Amino acid sequence: MSQKTYVHGYSNRESVRLSDQAQTLTSLLHDDTRYSTGSHVLEAGCGIGAQTAILAKNSPGAYITSVDISTDSLLRAKSVTRKKKITNVSFLQGDIFHLPFENETFDHIFVCFVLEHLAEPLCALERLRPLLKRGGTITVIEGDHGSAFFHPDSRYAQQAIDCLVYLQRRIGGNALIGRQLYPLLADAGFGKVQVSPRMVYADASHPAMAEGFTRLTFTAMVEGVGDTALREGLISQQEWDQGIRDLYRTSERDGVFCYTFFKAIGTRT
Amino acid sequence: MSQKTYVHGYSNRESVRLSDQAQTLTSLLHDDTRYSTGSHVLEAGCGIGAQTAILAKNSPGAYITSVDISTDSLLRAKSVTRKKKITNVSFLQGDIFHLPFENETFDHIFVCFVLEHLAEPLCALERLRPLLKRGGTITVIEGDHGSAFFHPDSRYAQQAIDCLVYLQRRIGGNALIGRQLYPLLADAGFGKVQVSPRMVYADASHPAMAEGFTRLTFTAMVEGVGDTALREGLISQQEWDQGIRDLYRTSERDGVFCYTFFKAIGTRT
Repeated sequence: MSQKTYVHGYSNRESVRLSDQAQTLTSLLHDDTRYSTGSHVLEAGCGIGAQTAILAKNSPGAYITSVDISTDSLLRAKSVTRKKKITNVSFLQGDIFHLPFENETFDHIFVCFVLEHLAEPLCALERLRPLLKRGGTITVIEGDHGSAFFHPDSRYAQQAIDCLVYLQRRIGGNALIGRQLYPLLADAGFGKVQVSPRMVYADASHPAMAEGFTRLTFTAMVEGVGDTALREGLISQQEWDQGIRDLYRTSERDGVFCYTFFKAIGTRT
Repeated sequence: MSQKTYVHGYSNRESVRLSDQAQTLTSLLHDDTRYSTGSHVLEAGCGIGAQTAILAKNSPGAYITSVDISTDSLLRAKSVTRKKKITNVSFLQGDIFHLPFENETFDHIFVCFVLEHLAEPLCALERLRPLLKRGGTITVIEGDHGSAFFHPDSRYAQQAIDCLVYLQRRIGGNALIGRQLYPLLADAGFGKVQVSPRMVYADASHPAMAEGFTRLTFTAMVEGVGDTALREGLISQQEWDQGIRDLYRTSERDGVFCYTFFKAIGTRT
């Protein structure tokens, strides 16, 4: 994925955020994905390897091929897996729309937080499908920023989130894609499509979620587009500051934050 | 609950809607509520008995006292339980803020789709708490119309929902109360408060949910305030019609509808 089409950017702070998020959400999103020993798995769009390390750990006997368009991200992903002594992953630079694999190469394909950044997610799924063996599965995980709601409610917080949704759309992405996984996979020709929503719910009885998700993941992600949103005049400095304060406010003693990821599985019939 | 403070009204169509909703959602909302034989349970705000019948069936050995402010609703509730040959429920007309029970009368209290209609939900919880024996539990279930999102997205559908939220607020209710259950129960003095979100997710692979919830429950409920919304000029006829069409549209082959209920349990410590 090229610099200009990845809304969150490639800074170090972004890398830290992605790692925090991966840890907090690992159970919720990944625990039911286990590939059998000897199976060949394509991770399409591995980024800096945040999900790769989890995949490889949960399926230690699978052969995982992780591809990304960004060579910088691949360098980081390689460094992550080397540090974690992961040996069942090969990395490859490539474009998800033109991957250099024969048809029916893989038993499974895994795509996580990738479609939201693509202008043509349906086309990407259609291009991936022939790479699966008959009976093989694709697993897709995406968030949906329109699923966020919180207490205390705040129109400024909503405006700040809307800036991220707008900026992501402007560079061809879709931050509301989670809700669309069922029709996307069905329209791309996959069979037996099953989607399960995975809600993150954080109140004061879940301090790890309030810290790891509400603050370090979601609010930090929204904050990441602040400079751009302000520079482009999408929102005033005062409204922005209030919105970010109000998002952090939802992680306090009487606050509540809800956000839903969607996990879809389809089969090449 | 008096006529003027119950936003959905008391028509026959509303009764049918409530029964459809109860059936579709029974499992999701009620299956983990089972009161032991011999326990005394207060159902505060039983309405026309849609939840009462489920409660009584799931806890056949418990003694259930169901109260409501509306004598009309109580008559219907009595008729429902009589038809279903339920014998472990007594009905009583009463105001949730001034119930005629001694302190520490009940082992458990159950409150479902009631707080959303009250101007002072915190006060209601504070009044109910002393009626529980020490160690007794309160269970509260509420929806949250701000949790609704769908595909295809539609600003007209959102406007129609906003009309319901506005009209409910104007008569003292709060259609966004689900997200607030944790702070409400904690602030009312209950201990060990645990809230679990229960998401209804409906796509074409879940036709019963698309029919029973998206169409017969949620969209029908929004439609129910159409006359009032139009009479009061909250929305134009054209926008309203489009909004309702767009809500029904989300139950079609490539549509998706999401809505979250919240179930909270607190203990009198």
